[in-house]
Amino acid sequence: MNWEKIDAHAKQWVKEAGEIIRLSFDKTLNIQTKSNPNDLVTNIDKEIEQFFIRKIKEVYSDHKIMGEEGFGDEFKNPDGIVWLIDPIDGTMNFIHQQRNFAISLGIYENGIGRIGLVYDVVHDELYHAIRGKGAYMNDKLLPPLKEAGVKEAIIALNATWVMENNRIDHNLLIPLARDARGTRSYGTAALEMVFVATGRIDAYLSMRLAPWDFGGGTVIVEELGGIVTNLRGEKLNYLSKDSLLVAKPGLHQTIIRDYLKDGKW
Amino acid sequence: MNWEKIDAHAKQWVKEAGEIIRLSFDKTLNIQTKSNPNDLVTNIDKEIEQFFIRKIKEVYSDHKIMGEEGFGDEFKNPDGIVWLIDPIDGTMNFIHQQRNFAISLGIYENGIGRIGLVYDVVHDELYHAIRGKGAYMNDKLLPPLKEAGVKEAIIALNATWVMENNRIDHNLLIPLARDARGTRSYGTAALEMVFVATGRIDAYLSMRLAPWDFGGGTVIVEELGGIVTNLRGEKLNYLSKDSLLVAKPGLHQTIIRDYLKDGKW
Repeated sequence: MNWEKIDAHAKQWVKEAGEIIRLSFDKTLNIQTKSNPNDLVTNIDKEIEQFFIRKIKEVYSDHKIMGEEGFGDEFKNPDGIVWLIDPIDGTMNFIHQQRNFAISLGIYENGIGRIGLVYDVVHDELYHAIRGKGAYMNDKLLPPLKEAGVKEAIIALNATWVMENNRIDHNLLIPLARDARGTRSYGTAALEMVFVATGRIDAYLSMRLAPWDFGGGTVIVEELGGIVTNLRGEKLNYLSKDSLLVAKPGLHQTIIRDYLKDGKW
Repeated sequence: MNWEKIDAHAKQWVKEAGEIIRLSFDKTLNIQTKSNPNDLVTNIDKEIEQFFIRKIKEVYSDHKIMGEEGFGDEFKNPDGIVWLIDPIDGTMNFIHQQRNFAISLGIYENGIGRIGLVYDVVHDELYHAIRGKGAYMNDKLLPPLKEAGVKEAIIALNATWVMENNRIDHNLLIPLARDARGTRSYGTAALEMVFVATGRIDAYLSMRLAPWDFGGGTVIVEELGGIVTNLRGEKLNYLSKDSLLVAKPGLHQTIIRDYLKDGKW
């Protein structure tokens, strides 16, 4: 498989999609609400997903596509090459802030991540990796992640997870938030994953994300020695929704063992 | 008083200070810890505060100065003209991320805010206002803030405040975090205040901040019709530490009345 060629196409399309998004800022956004008011979707979300599908199908007609907006393919196994696409990760930020959102693209082969791209459109920062070939922010090679401990860590997690909720016993996470040097919340899984990759934060966790949210970021973080699992410490499945813990080496094991009780909850 | 002239000086010095900070990124930061490990301070913090003091004393020898690093004047009343300076608001972000920090400058006359400047150094975005003359981001005039409700609001607050803590009964804030459209946390009061000014978020709250943290942002937010008080709905005193609630009109009153029980706690 010529991953460099696929990567070159993916990069070109991501940049083109970014340009479409930048141009859309001047248009009035026609916002619809999906299943709940926190899950906003815009016309531009759909337009970008369809743009990717058109491009991919034109050149790689045998590849499968799974996207947030549901215009992709229906399939039940990860065989072959699968593109995981989030046209705008952080839609609420996109609408309210016109920043702090990203395009996320992960390309998987038989369930193994091969290419990851996360594009911070507004800051023109493209985070990218081909498995085994290093991870980059634009043209800058990113250094491998160093081990970190909880007391020196900035951890990204939403306030919701330290309040009573129906995903996790919040009493597991409160000591973690307390022991960390600080907590942050940016509202975009794809960017929060690459913030771990660049060392801006040390860990990121969330209770329920979809493959298109974490598909791209995973390849980038893992390429740098970061660890990506669900909150029970299990490998993620790139066909279903799951919880997520992304962290520097050392820190990941500590969080799973000392705070998340090795998944015994 | 010639506020335009003072403003022109303040802007020039803030830009010069920004340049010093940008140049410092390449040097190794010599980090000291202050009273607790969460309160990091760097040489550059001190250098920038001393830079401002030198400049101000040169031109305005009768003005008073209060700064985070403690190189300012000692005084007990707000008479005359006072400069409130935070050389680097968001020091932890500065160290970990080299972004998401700002220089904050507020200029007060007899306790009334006259000039506010918040400079996002990395993005070269200067938020500024002279009372009564409009608020700007760089050269762009910012529109007045519109009324907002809780259900449509993105509220910035740290996860710490919805956990048991010794500043506030967290049970007051949990319903607010639950009812809001979303919560965020950026770790820099000055920028979180101007994010309210630009509508990127709708409200920001914190439990304990100093005058140099909120002095600059207050002038900018109030110029746009936003409301700034402590969490009991009382006017802030620009000589002492206090809690903070910054919000769009309507939203501020709702939070104080329905969630913070008009300060009856």
